[in-house]
Amino acid sequence: MKGDICTAVFMPGGKRAEFKRGVSILEAAESIDLKIESACGGQQKCGMCKVIPTGNLSKLTQDELRLLTEEEVEQGYRLACAATIQGDVTITVPVESRMREQRLQIEGIEQPVSLDPAVRKYIVELPVATLEDIRTDKERILERIKEVFGLDLEIEYGVYKQLPGAIRDGEWTVSVAVWNGKRTLSVEPGVVRHAYGVAVDVGTTKIAGYLLNLRNGEVIGKEAIVNPQIKYGEDVVSRISYATDADKNLERLQISVIDAIGQIIKDTCAEAGVETRHIYEIVVVGNTVMQHLLLGVSPKYVGRSPYCAVLGSGDFRASDIGLKANANLHTFPVIGGFVGGDHVSAILATKMNESEEMSMLMDIGTNTEIAIGNKEDMISCSCASGPAFEGFYIKHGMRASSGAIEHVEINPETFEVRYRTIEGVRPRGLCGSGLIDLLAELLKTGVMDSAGKLNPEIESNRITTNNDEVEFVVAWERETGIDSDVVITQRDIRELQSAKAAMRAGAEILMLKKGIKEADIDVFYIAGAFGSYVEPANARIIGMYPDVDLERVKIVGNAAGSGAKLALISGEERAHAEEIAKKVRYIELAAEPKFTRCYMLSHYFPFGVALTDIRR
Amino acid sequence: MKGDICTAVFMPGGKRAEFKRGVSILEAAESIDLKIESACGGQQKCGMCKVIPTGNLSKLTQDELRLLTEEEVEQGYRLACAATIQGDVTITVPVESRMREQRLQIEGIEQPVSLDPAVRKYIVELPVATLEDIRTDKERILERIKEVFGLDLEIEYGVYKQLPGAIRDGEWTVSVAVWNGKRTLSVEPGVVRHAYGVAVDVGTTKIAGYLLNLRNGEVIGKEAIVNPQIKYGEDVVSRISYATDADKNLERLQISVIDAIGQIIKDTCAEAGVETRHIYEIVVVGNTVMQHLLLGVSPKYVGRSPYCAVLGSGDFRASDIGLKANANLHTFPVIGGFVGGDHVSAILATKMNESEEMSMLMDIGTNTEIAIGNKEDMISCSCASGPAFEGFYIKHGMRASSGAIEHVEINPETFEVRYRTIEGVRPRGLCGSGLIDLLAELLKTGVMDSAGKLNPEIESNRITTNNDEVEFVVAWERETGIDSDVVITQRDIRELQSAKAAMRAGAEILMLKKGIKEADIDVFYIAGAFGSYVEPANARIIGMYPDVDLERVKIVGNAAGSGAKLALISGEERAHAEEIAKKVRYIELAAEPKFTRCYMLSHYFPFGVALTDIRR
Repeated sequence: MKGDICTAVFMPGGKRAEFKRGVSILEAAESIDLKIESACGGQQKCGMCKVIPTGNLSKLTQDELRLLTEEEVEQGYRLACAATIQGDVTITVPVESRMREQRLQIEGIEQPVSLDPAVRKYIVELPVATLEDIRTDKERILERIKEVFGLDLEIEYGVYKQLPGAIRDGEWTVSVAVWNGKRTLSVEPGVVRHAYGVAVDVGTTKIAGYLLNLRNGEVIGKEAIVNPQIKYGEDVVSRISYATDADKNLERLQISVIDAIGQIIKDTCAEAGVETRHIYEIVVVGNTVMQHLLLGVSPKYVGRSPYCAVLGSGDFRASDIGLKANANLHTFPVIGGFVGGDHVSAILATKMNESEEMSMLMDIGTNTEIAIGNKEDMISCSCASGPAFEGFYIKHGMRASSGAIEHVEINPETFEVRYRTIEGVRPRGLCGSGLIDLLAELLKTGVMDSAGKLNPEIESNRITTNNDEVEFVVAWERETGIDSDVVITQRDIRELQSAKAAMRAGAEILMLKKGIKEADIDVFYIAGAFGSYVEPANARIIGMYPDVDLERVKIVGNAAGSGAKLALISGEERAHAEEIAKKVRYIELAAEPKFTRCYMLSHYFPFGVALTDIRR
Repeated sequence: MKGDICTAVFMPGGKRAEFKRGVSILEAAESIDLKIESACGGQQKCGMCKVIPTGNLSKLTQDELRLLTEEEVEQGYRLACAATIQGDVTITVPVESRMREQRLQIEGIEQPVSLDPAVRKYIVELPVATLEDIRTDKERILERIKEVFGLDLEIEYGVYKQLPGAIRDGEWTVSVAVWNGKRTLSVEPGVVRHAYGVAVDVGTTKIAGYLLNLRNGEVIGKEAIVNPQIKYGEDVVSRISYATDADKNLERLQISVIDAIGQIIKDTCAEAGVETRHIYEIVVVGNTVMQHLLLGVSPKYVGRSPYCAVLGSGDFRASDIGLKANANLHTFPVIGGFVGGDHVSAILATKMNESEEMSMLMDIGTNTEIAIGNKEDMISCSCASGPAFEGFYIKHGMRASSGAIEHVEINPETFEVRYRTIEGVRPRGLCGSGLIDLLAELLKTGVMDSAGKLNPEIESNRITTNNDEVEFVVAWERETGIDSDVVITQRDIRELQSAKAAMRAGAEILMLKKGIKEADIDVFYIAGAFGSYVEPANARIIGMYPDVDLERVKIVGNAAGSGAKLALISGEERAHAEEIAKKVRYIELAAEPKFTRCYMLSHYFPFGVALTDIRR
C-alpha cells in the first residue's frame, strides 16, 4: 500500500490490480472485468456476491450479518458489495460467486459451456409509495430497474396481476425474473433467487425432458415418456395427414404434446423439490413437424415440395400455448423439410460444424436425420425410418425399460441364446439395442440370410411356425416375465429391414452428394435416445450405417437433448444454433434420382457389394 | 423543362420543385417531403397512391390498368408510383391520397387532429419458395418487410397460425397489419386495405363505444350500453369491495365488462358492415378502477392511502383479456386515486392543459372527476357522486332514451308541469337533464325549500303522500307510457342532493387549493354522457357547479370518449395523454380537512351564503 493506493489480488487466477482505498470489492472486481455474481446491483440485498478476503478490510455491516450464515461469517465470508478495501488484500472468489465464468459439463456429450442463461433474477428495492409519490406500481418498478440495472423492461400482461400483491407482501422488495434483459416473466415478493429451466426433446415417438438449475447449470431431473400423439399416427407423415384432415385435429395434436410436456415439468419438479413457478424458460427441440404441432401451426406445407417450414426459432410465452408457467418458450431453428430443431441441436452438441474433421451424424429415431460435413460445408437429410427400433410394430418390441432384452448372443453351434435384460429381471420384450444384436447374431449364425429371410430348415426348436409365419424364440415362456415366449417374427424382421434401409440409403445419398467414401469419414456419431446402448459392431454388421472403422464411431446418446440443455443455459450456444440452421443445406431425398434404388438395395444384410454399383 | 430537368407543381398547396426526367411522381413527392399514401412501398401493388397529373407523363402501365377503375382512368387518375415525370407537370393529390396530412374533426369537442394511427397495413409481395430457397415463412416475410419498408417486425404467436394459409391463398402476396411499426397483428392473403379501430369509454354505469375507420379517421358507428358490472356494486368503492371479497369475483367483473365491449364491437361492426377481424386497435379509457377490472388486475390498493394504481397506460393483445380480435388493446394513463384514463382523455379533448385560460372541467358520472388549471399547473380530484343523475336509485329514473323526460317547467302559479320527452313519446321516467330541470323548478316555485324538503302545504294535487313519503307528480298516469304517474319522491331528492353535494364540494376544494374564485374561471366545461342535454342555468341554480357566468360554460358531451377517439387515430394525441397524466397532480379529498364540512353544506340549494364561511 502506497498512500491511498492498495493492491488487491483476486484468487483463483491471481489477477492483481491497484485500487483507491475505500472502494468496494465488487466495484474493484468489475473495474478489472472480473465478474462476481450479483442480482441486486450491489445494494446489499441479494447476498450473492460472497467472497473470502484477507487483509485490511472495512468492518462487517448489518446487511452482511443478515445475509451471511454464522458459519460463513466464521469462515471469513464477506459480501463483495459491502466490504471495502482498506489496505493490501487477497480476495478469494468462490465458485458459486463466479458462475458466469464457470465451465460446465453437460451429460451426454461433454462440451464446455459458459453459463449465461437468458433468464436472470433481479432483487429490487422500491421506494415506498406516499401521498407525494403516487406513481403506479408499473412506473415505480420500471423506473427503479432502469435506475439500478440500466434495463428497459416490458411487463407482460399476466405479471400485472402479481404486481400489487408482490410489492406489498414483499414490503417494497421484490424479485423480478427477466428474460433477455427485456421481458418481465414474474415478480415475486421479497428475495427469491431460484431460477430453473426445462430442456425438452420432442421426438415423434418419445419425449425427453431435463430440469436444470439456471443458477449453476446443473441437471437436477429428467424424464422420458411416450409422445401421446402416437395414437394419431406413427410417423411425421401420418401426423401431418391427421393434422390437416379435420378442423379440430391440429388442436388435438397440440394439446396432447403440451399435456405431456406439462406432465414432465410437474414430475421432474416434484422429484427435485422445485416449485413449478420457478421455471422461467422451456427450450424445445423437435423435428419440424413436432415443433409446428407444439405451436398449433399447420405442418401442411412442410411435407410438400419445396418443403418450407412456417417457422423455426421463436420465443413465446409458455402460457400462449397453454402451459401453466411464467416462462419463455424457445423453439429451435430448423434446417428444412423434416430436418428440424432436434437435428440442429444434435449438431450443436457434437460441434461438428466447427471441426476440421469430416464428420457424419446419424440421429436415429422414428424420423432419422443425418448430417455430413465439417466447418467448411454441411448437408443434411431426413429418413422415414419409422419407430421399429423404438420397439413399435414389433411383436415383442418394447421401450428400453425394466425387463427389456438389451443384449443378445446366439451360439452358432447350438443356436442357444444368451441375453441380458435391463435391471436384470425376467425378459418382457426386446428394445432397440437388443433387436440390433439379435439381427446381427441371426445373420452371423445363418438363422437368417442376407435378404432377411429366416431359415426354417435350421435344426433348432427355436425356429417355429406360428399362424404360417416363421419365428425365432429368443426366450422361452418359462424364463420370461410375460405369459409367452419372447420371439422375433419374419414380419418383425421386414419392419426392421425397412427402417435400417431408410437410414442407410439416406447416409449413402449424402456421401454421394458430398463425393466421399467411408474412409473419408473421420468421426461417425450415432445419436438417438436408444443409441447409448447400441453395440456399434452389430449395428455395422446389419448395415445400419456405412462401414466406418469402429474406433471412429462415437455414441453420443440423446444429442438433441444435450443441445437443448446447452442452449437453455447459454446464450452463446443459442446463437450457435442459429448459425448451424443457416449453414447446413437441406437435401430432399425424394428429389434424388438414385434414392429409390439405393433404398431397395439397402434392405440387404450387408449390402456393400450391391452398393458398388450405385456409387459409380 | 430545361434539358432533363422538369418542373412539377403539386396541388393543392402549389409546392413546386425541379426533378430529373424519369423520376416517379411518388419519388418526386417524397424527395420534397410531401406525403402520398402508399402501403406497398411503391411497388404498384396497393393502388393507394392515386394522383391526377397533367402534362408530360409516362404511359399507363398494366398495373395501373389493373388497380384503377375505368372511371378513374377516364378522370385522369394515375398511380404516383407508376407514372414518371417526362416534362413539366402539375400534379393534384386528392384528399384520399394525402391522409396523413389531413386535419380532421372529431364529434363531441371539435379539435383538429392529424391522422396517424398506430396501426398501418402493408401490402407485401414475397419471393416464391423453391427448392433453392426454402426459408421459413417467418424469415421470408420478415426479411421482405425489412427490405421494402425498413421495419424490424415481431410476429405474435397467433399470427403464425394464419401465416402458411395466408401466403399460399394470397399467391405470395399478403397484407400485414402492423402496430407501431413493430408488432404484427395479422397477415391476410392478397391485398386487403381495411383497417378499423374502436374507442371505448368504460364508465362505472355506462359503456360507450365508437367504431372508427383508421384510414380516414371517420366515426362510422357507436353504441352505449349499461355496464353489466353494475349488478356487483353501484359505484367504484363497492366494486373494489366485491372484487377483493372472494377469489373468483375479480374474474367475474373482468369477464362482464369484456363481454360488454365484445358486444359493442360486434354490434357496431355488423351495423357498419365491417368484419371484426379488421379491428386492429381498441383504445379504452375509464376511471382507474374500471381500467383495472378490465385487465383483471386487483384494484385493492387504488382505494387505500396513498391511492396508487397498479398501471395506467399499457398495450396488450386484445386476446390476452379474452377479446376475440387480432388487435392491440391500449389503456390510458391515469392520474391517481380514482382519477383515471377517462379524465385524462376528457382533458385531452378540451386541451385545457395547453391553454393560458384558467379552466375547470367537471366530468359528471357515477364517479365525477374534476380538474382545474391551465398550461402552468393542473390539479384534479374524484367525487363519489353516485349514479343518481344517471337515473339509478331514483323511483322513476331512467337512461336518456326514448320516453325519458329530458326537460321540465313548472308554472309558479298553478304548479302545472310542461315537459318534453326524448323522441316526443309518452313519458316513461326521468333522465338526468330532466331531474336537474325538475329540481331547479321545484326550488324556484317554492315546492321544495333550500334544504331540499318538499312542501306538503302547497295547494296542488301534484303534491301527494304515498306510504308516508311526500311525492311530486310530474306526469299523470293518463299521460304516461307506464301504468302509473311519473313522480319524484322526497327520497329521490335526497339521493340527488348527495350526488350534487359531492360534485360541488370537490369543485370547491379544488378552487380553495388553487386559491381562486368563480370569477377567475375563464372556461367551465361540463362533460359526461348526459351532459349534452343539461340546461346549464338550471344546473347552476341547484348548485351543481360554482356560480360561473353562463357564457363561460361549455357543454362538451362525452369528452372522455372524444379523447379516446383522438388517441385512436393519432399517435401525437396519445403522447399528449401521457404528458397530461404526468402533469396533473392528484388531490385526495378525504385527506382535505375542509372537505366534510364543505360536503355537508353543499347539500343546500343554493348554498353560496353558507360557503362564504368555508372560503375564509
